[in-house]
Order: sequence, then C-alpha cells, then structure tokens
Amino acid sequence: MANFKGHALPGSFFILFGLWWSVKYSLKHVSRTPKKNNHVQRNFKHVEIIEGAVKVVFTLVGILAEQFVPDGPHLYLYSGQPRSWVKLMNWQHSTMYLFFLISGAVDIITYSTTLLPLGLDRFMLGIAVFVEGFLFQYHVSQRPMLDQHIHVMLLTAIYAGVATCVIQVFVRDNMILDLFSACLALLQGTWFWQIGFVLYPPWGGPEWDLNDHRNVMFVTMCFCWHFALAILITAVNYTLVYCYFHNYKRSNTQITIGLGIRKQKNAHAPLINESDEE
Amino acid sequence: MANFKGHALPGSFFILFGLWWSVKYSLKHVSRTPKKNNHVQRNFKHVEIIEGAVKVVFTLVGILAEQFVPDGPHLYLYSGQPRSWVKLMNWQHSTMYLFFLISGAVDIITYSTTLLPLGLDRFMLGIAVFVEGFLFQYHVSQRPMLDQHIHVMLLTAIYAGVATCVIQVFVRDNMILDLFSACLALLQGTWFWQIGFVLYPPWGGPEWDLNDHRNVMFVTMCFCWHFALAILITAVNYTLVYCYFHNYKRSNTQITIGLGIRKQKNAHAPLINESDEE
Amino acid sequence: MANFKGHALPGSFFILFGLWWSVKYSLKHVSRTPKKNNHVQRNFKHVEIIEGAVKVVFTLVGILAEQFVPDGPHLYLYSGQPRSWVKLMNWQHSTMYLFFLISGAVDIITYSTTLLPLGLDRFMLGIAVFVEGFLFQYHVSQRPMLDQHIHVMLLTAIYAGVATCVIQVFVRDNMILDLFSACLALLQGTWFWQIGFVLYPPWGGPEWDLNDHRNVMFVTMCFCWHFALAILITAVNYTLVYCYFHNYKRSNTQITIGLGIRKQKNAHAPLINESDEE
Amino acid sequence: MANFKGHALPGSFFILFGLWWSVKYSLKHVSRTPKKNNHVQRNFKHVEIIEGAVKVVFTLVGILAEQFVPDGPHLYLYSGQPRSWVKLMNWQHSTMYLFFLISGAVDIITYSTTLLPLGLDRFMLGIAVFVEGFLFQYHVSQRPMLDQHIHVMLLTAIYAGVATCVIQVFVRDNMILDLFSACLALLQGTWFWQIGFVLYPPWGGPEWDLNDHRNVMFVTMCFCWHFALAILITAVNYTLVYCYFHNYKRSNTQITIGLGIRKQKNAHAPLINESDEE
Repeated sequence: MANFKGHALPGSFFILFGLWWSVKYSLKHVSRTPKKNNHVQRNFKHVEIIEGAVKVVFTLVGILAEQFVPDGPHLYLYSGQPRSWVKLMNWQHSTMYLFFLISGAVDIITYSTTLLPLGLDRFMLGIAVFVEGFLFQYHVSQRPMLDQHIHVMLLTAIYAGVATCVIQVFVRDNMILDLFSACLALLQGTWFWQIGFVLYPPWGGPEWDLNDHRNVMFVTMCFCWHFALAILITAVNYTLVYCYFHNYKRSNTQITIGLGIRKQKNAHAPLINESDEE
Repeated sequence: MANFKGHALPGSFFILFGLWWSVKYSLKHVSRTPKKNNHVQRNFKHVEIIEGAVKVVFTLVGILAEQFVPDGPHLYLYSGQPRSWVKLMNWQHSTMYLFFLISGAVDIITYSTTLLPLGLDRFMLGIAVFVEGFLFQYHVSQRPMLDQHIHVMLLTAIYAGVATCVIQVFVRDNMILDLFSACLALLQGTWFWQIGFVLYPPWGGPEWDLNDHRNVMFVTMCFCWHFALAILITAVNYTLVYCYFHNYKRSNTQITIGLGIRKQKNAHAPLINESDEE
Repeated sequence: MANFKGHALPGSFFILFGLWWSVKYSLKHVSRTPKKNNHVQRNFKHVEIIEGAVKVVFTLVGILAEQFVPDGPHLYLYSGQPRSWVKLMNWQHSTMYLFFLISGAVDIITYSTTLLPLGLDRFMLGIAVFVEGFLFQYHVSQRPMLDQHIHVMLLTAIYAGVATCVIQVFVRDNMILDLFSACLALLQGTWFWQIGFVLYPPWGGPEWDLNDHRNVMFVTMCFCWHFALAILITAVNYTLVYCYFHNYKRSNTQITIGLGIRKQKNAHAPLINESDEE
Repeated sequence: MANFKGHALPGSFFILFGLWWSVKYSLKHVSRTPKKNNHVQRNFKHVEIIEGAVKVVFTLVGILAEQFVPDGPHLYLYSGQPRSWVKLMNWQHSTMYLFFLISGAVDIITYSTTLLPLGLDRFMLGIAVFVEGFLFQYHVSQRPMLDQHIHVMLLTAIYAGVATCVIQVFVRDNMILDLFSACLALLQGTWFWQIGFVLYPPWGGPEWDLNDHRNVMFVTMCFCWHFALAILITAVNYTLVYCYFHNYKRSNTQITIGLGIRKQKNAHAPLINESDEE
C-alpha cells in the first residue's frame, strides 16, 4: 500500500473517528450533571457499544482486504522459490488492524457486561495505538531523510496518543484528556493525507526532493499547522455542541414553563440536564 | 548459555509465571467483594508467601547451576594465564537470578510479617526486572543487526514490565495493571523461545540471515503476534476463572437454598463472595 | 532573525513573564487562606484574563511583524524562480507565536466563562511551549557543535516547562510547580540572551570557536549558573512578597484594632487574609 | 580532580549520607504512629535542620577548596596568554557544590519557618542531583569506551535519584521511596569509589584496558552488585532500627509496668510510640 490511497484511507478513518470523538466527548461533558443521571449514562453506554462494533467490522474488513486483494498474500507468509517473506507490508497492516479489532471487542465487552473493569477499553486502545507506532517505527529505517522525518512526525502524534490513553486509565472522565485524544486522532488523520501528498503526489505534480533540509524544516512546521487545525476543529465542535445544548435547554425550559408543570415530564429530551428546573 | 536451551529455559519459567499470575490475579479480582473478606485475604497471603519461596528456591538452584556446571566459572571471576574474566555470561545470569532471589525473599517477608510495607514486593520485582533489562541492554552491542533487534523487542517487554511494577507501588490492586503484568510475563516467555528458534535453530533448519532488513521487519511483526497471543491467553484464563467462579457461586447458592438456611454456614466455599445471599 | 536582536527580543519577553509570574504566584499562594476567600479569587481571575489579553496582543503583533517586515515573506510561502520556500525562519516564528496566541485566547475564555474547564489553560500553555521546543529541535541540526549544544540547553529548559505544565493540569495550585514554571521562564529568557551573546557577539568582540570542546563544557556550566540565578530571582521575589504581605497584614491589624471593631469591615485591603482577626 | 582521591572524596560523602538516611528514614517510619505524635515530629524537624546546616557547611568548604587549592582557579574564569578557560573542572565541581548548598539552605528554611511549603526540600534536592547528572553527562564525551560506560552507570543512579526526589514532592512520607533514595545515595557513593579504582588504580596495579568489550560487560555487572550491596546495607540498617526500636519499646513497657502507672509519664523515651500502653 505504498501509494497515495494507502495513506488516504487510514487518514480518512482517523479523521472520521476524530470528528466523531470530538462530538461525543463534547456531548458527554456538556451533559454531565452533579446528580447521577442514569438516563444519559445508559445512552452513552449504547453509543460506546456501537462504536466498538463499528471498529470490529471495519478492522475485520481491513484484514480481509489486506489478505485477499489480488496482489495480497492470501494468508501465505513464507513461500516462493527461493523461499522468502510474502508481502510483509500487507501482513503488517493486518497486524495493526488486529489490535484495533481487539480494542473494539474490548469496548463492546466492557460496556455491555460487568466482566471487565472500566478503563480497560482505554488501556486496550492505548495498546493498539502503541502497536501501530511500534510497527511504523521499524518500518521506515533505511529510507530517505524526508520520508523518515515525515514518519517521525506521525510517531509523535501516535505516541502522544498512547500516553493520553494510558493516563486515561487512571484519570477517567477528564474532559481535557478526552478532547485531546479526539484532537490527536484528527491530527493523525490529516497527517496521513499529508504524507500521501508529499511522498506520492497524486495529480502528477512535481516530486519532492527527499534529501533537501529545507523540506524537512517545512514539514516540521506543517505538522504544527495540522496540529493547530486539529485543535481548531475540536474547539469548533465543542462550541457548537455547547451552544446547541444550552440553547436547546433554555428553549425547552421556556416551552415547559409555557405548557405548565403538568406536561414537564413528557417534554424531557433524552440527553438533557434539568437540574435547574427542579 | 548462548544456545537454544539457554533461551528455552528462562522462557519456560516466564511462561509458567505468566500463566500462574493470570489465574491468580483473575481469582483475586473476581473474588473481591465490597465488604472486607478477611478469609480470602488471608488465603492470598499464603499464596504470595509460597510464590516467594518458589522464586527463592528456583533462583538459588539457578545460581548454583550457573556456577557449578562443568563448564561454569566455579566462583572464579578473574583468573587464567593471561589473567582475564572467567565466563562473564554465567556471572551475568547469576546476577540476574540474585535479584529475583531478593525479590522472592522480599515477597515472603512482606506477606508474612509487618516489617515491610505492602508495595515493596512490587517495587523489588520492578528492580529485579530492571536489572535483567539493564544487563541485556549492554549484553548485545556489537552483534549482527537481527540479533540486536530481536533483543530490543525483548527489552521493550522488560521495560514495560518495570514501568508496570513501579506504577503498582502507588496504584495497588488495579486489575488492569495486575493482568497486564501477567500478560508481559507471558510475552517475555514466548519471546525467549522465539529468540532461541531464530538465533539457534534447534532441528538443524536453515540459518536466518542476520543482516536482512526483511527479517527485521518480520521479527517486529512477530513480536506483536506474540503480544496478541499473550493478551488472548490472559483473556481466556480470566474468562474461565470468571465463569467458573460465578457458576460455582450460583450452584452453591442454589444448593444452599435447597438445604435450607440452617446449613448455609457450612456450605461456604473458601474463596466465595456471598454478598448476594444475605 | 538569526542575529543578536532576534534572540534578545524573545529573551526579554520570557524574562518579563518570568518576573511577573514569580510575583503573581507568590501573591496567590501567600494570600491563600483556609476559608474560601472569593474576593481574592475574583481578583486573580481578572489578572489571568488581562494576562491572556496581553499574550494575544503581543503574539498578534509578533506574527504581523514576522510577516510584513521589509525582508519578511509577506504571506508568500512557496514562490520565486526556481520556486522554493520563502523565508522559512519567519514562518517558523509565526507558527510559534500562533500557538502562544491560542494559549492566550484559551486563558481568556477559561477565566471569563464557564465554557472550558480549569486546567485547560495550563494544558494549552504546555502545548505552546512544546511546539516551540519541537520546532527548535529540528531547526538546529546540521550546525556546528557549540551551536547545537547551546540549543540543546534551551530545549532542556523548554521540555522541563512542558512537563511542568502537563503536571499542573492534574495537580493544580501547587506552589512548587507554579514557582518552578516562573523559574523556567526566567531561565529560558536569560538563556536566549546568552545564545545571542555567544553566537552573535553584539559589540564586535572575538568570535567563539564553535568546535572547541572546552567551550561546550563552559556553556553547560554556564546554563547551570543561569538556572541558579533564575532560582535566586524567584526566591527573592517570593520573599519580598511574603514579607510585604505579612507586614501589611500586621500593620493593618494594628490600625484596625486601634480604630475599633466598628471600622474593621472598611479597613480590609483587597488581597488580605484576615482569618486571625475574627 | 581527575585522580583517585577526586572520586573517593565525593564517594565517601555519598556513602555517609546514604548510611545516615537509611537510619533516619528507618527511624522515621518505624516510629510513626496512627495518632499525631508531635514530639517525634518536632525532633525530626531539628534533625532535618541540622542536616541542612551540615550540607551548607560542607559544600561551602568544598567550593572554597576547589577554588583556592594551589592549582585551583582562584576565582579566575577566563585568563592567560592566549586567553582561555581556567580550570573548567574545578569550576564545574564548584557549580555542583553550589546547588547542593542551595538544597541545604532550602532544607533549613523549609523546616525552621513556615515560609516554604513541605516538599520543596525534596524538589530542590532533586534539582541539585539533576545538575550533578547534567554536568557529568557532557563531561565525559570524547573519552575511551570504558570511561564513558562507567560514567553512564553513574548517570543511571543519578537520574534514578532525580526521579525519586521529584515523585517525593507529590508522594510524601512513602517509606519505599525514602529508603530507595538512601539506597541510591549508597550506590552512587560506592560507585564513585569503583570509578576511582578502575580509572586510576591507586596502588600501582595493572591498568584496565579501556577499549575491551569484556571490561564493559564486567563493569555493567559490577554496577548491579553495588546495587545489591546498597540494598543489603539499607535492609540491614532498617532491620536493626526496627528490632532495636521494638525491643526498646517492649522492655520499656515492662519496666513501666513494673514501676506502676504513676511513673509512666517520666519513663517515656523521646522517640517511642506508646499506643499499646493506653
């Protein structure tokens, strides 16, 4: 998959997950109330289970695709004359998907049963992201300077994600960490696209000089811009959710007051905190 | 001990300990109840003491074996004509065993007396694992690429174990950390076997090309598979213990109900949480 | 900006902020009382908002200056014949300023609304400092030994600052961390001046030999002296604030006692803890 | 001071402090009681102040000695024809002493006034140890392999000490951390002696081959033995203090009982926990 599409595809997934997480965690923290609102809690549980299932399905499709595309290894690992490793790249990608699959499965089990403790979902996600970084790290040695450098930037985002997940095992429900993990997923996603554009210019543009130090400097700076962009997107999503939620609540409260106390119970929207109405 | 057996032996020990820990910690966390159940606590205390004693005995045997096998150093450190270091490898292994011996002794003292605070057993285990990693780290410089790389993978597992033990000093009785340490022990064990197979093919198979970059890439990926396997084994053991424990409790409860309240006290199995019977 | 002024300017800013923080945090912790004194809290809130606004204004001026000085890039990034990167240095500085601008904006929003959680201001400052370090790190490869070494010292101060900020997200209002961050800002500031003096001697002094190992050794030691100086300045500021505050309180108490209980309420100075008068 | 004495002197100081700390912290934790025993607390306060004063005096003597020994720099930093750095080694040692002096001063102020918060003494000690490591790190580049390696071992002990001190700022009065810091001081001390013996054999013994890989391997292992020795000494000291304290308490209690309740108050030894007498 050393081509443009091979970077755009995972990039798009990370962007989608980043966007989704920035909305999910915003909602989760905006809707949090001092009193235990089981209604909201239960809804989020369902959301987490669905998210886990989506992860499992996509990674399963990913593994099968990597194995059984026409030029894939078709589950052969070591064959040929002379015998050698078959399509190690595809096997590596399958391995990465495998760990995200495990992470998805752990999400489902954690939130649907009492078998596993809370926190294990974050820990397993941390392991999956770590394995991704670990495989990338030894993937790019013996390549030109810019190629290595652009992957080092990716590794920075990946390992920051690992650290965030591990801290979340011990510090649960911290809004800063939750939104930061969304932000890092976005950063990883857009950076995958950037890698695709730099290493495999899609529309026949000029090739980048992979050994020019000025390109390395530009790429470092560009990574910071992607980071700023990821922070901006997360902030905008959070603000939209915050405003929507508080407007909704206010209008809802006014309507409720207009309709009289008798209808209050029916007017409750699922995710709303009504602590100030009582 | 630079041969196949020299890697299979420690590998087997780590696998045994990994399996045992995955069962022990599963039981410990599955049997935990909100009320302080001194009975269970006391049983685990005995188990820890026995585990410490086993560690002490095995490492003592290990040290003596390393010293007094026919081609061992027989406690000579620096001799010969011209004078030089005698069998540094054996001395290094003895040193590693020594720290695990100390760790075993600390286990015994921590759980059998009030002399030492809880947590010191994990701290000392962390030190023992650190010393193992520290000796390995400087053990493999000046070797071929694949040999170094395969030991770097081992060091990753070892230092992850050190970090886990140190965190456990401050965050005690966290199920995620406990099971992760079991999982890392399994990973280390199976990886020792893998190193043996790669560097010293036991059944006269073809030699691995120690300078082929594709072999490095395969080995990195293979390490991740071992990791996935270790996670799987830990998960299976945990599930078995969980199911067994809950089935047992349920059947026990039914029997108890059948026999009537009068016999309840005698029907209590040692490790059972009966909070829902009252 | 690879000249003396280009290092003296950021250096001065960091020194100013370091001095200001050492006073602010001293006041904050000296004036802290067991009972929740909302009066003081509210004042500090205003101070934080003003500080955020100052950051926003200065960084905005900085970005504009970097872009539109006569030899700046004027927002061109990639042009010329043959096409190449335009003034990457200025773009990098603009990027650094951008993150400090975001940090300032987050300060304002955190302390003026309830939109964002406390702690996010420190986290964002940590990110801004990290980006500064990240850009510096890849900025100085391929330079002479002393030039690299003197920037490594700077990176030490920068990454220590990042670590401090991240810890502050979880451990809020810890006086040691607060004063240490002031101290690191001072260190960074004076070290920027030192870099200017070493690499671009301002008054036509003798050039430093950039490849002499003794110069490297001196520079390492010199960094420690700057550190000691930063600690000294912070300590002096803290002591002055402490003495001033306690003298003021005592004299105020005496006057209050002289005037009688009736006037006590009016005699209260804004930042004073009067727990022992009641 | 690149000779045997130059390593034996700091080594002896670290050993002395290590021994002293292993006794002090043992006493502190053995004498701790559930009820707040202000008597013991106050005594430890005095001990800490004296310890700080000892540090200040010794480091002051050290700085003066480094500067004014016959072949010292006599406060000249840059002179001669051609002008160059004067005795950078002595200046570096003076710098190290300076930070331990600051640490001693902070000890005195922390424990004798309410000006500074508890924890700052550990933080400042951490900084002093960090500066020691920081100076050593850039001190030994461009030396033979074994010389560098033996100092890397030292740095391991030093940075472990820094980490321990920083954790102690947040986790105070943890017996494991306290005794581990004593253990690391002992390790550093004995390792300084070892460095002296290896690099400057004192009694005209054979020179070590500084480029032999087997020597590197031996030195790594030898470091682990020093570590085991340091753990042993700390353990023995702790056990002695524990036994002495508990025997003393028991015999004291018996005497007290013999003399009758009337004399109990006078028979109390300063450091004794009498919770079981009441």
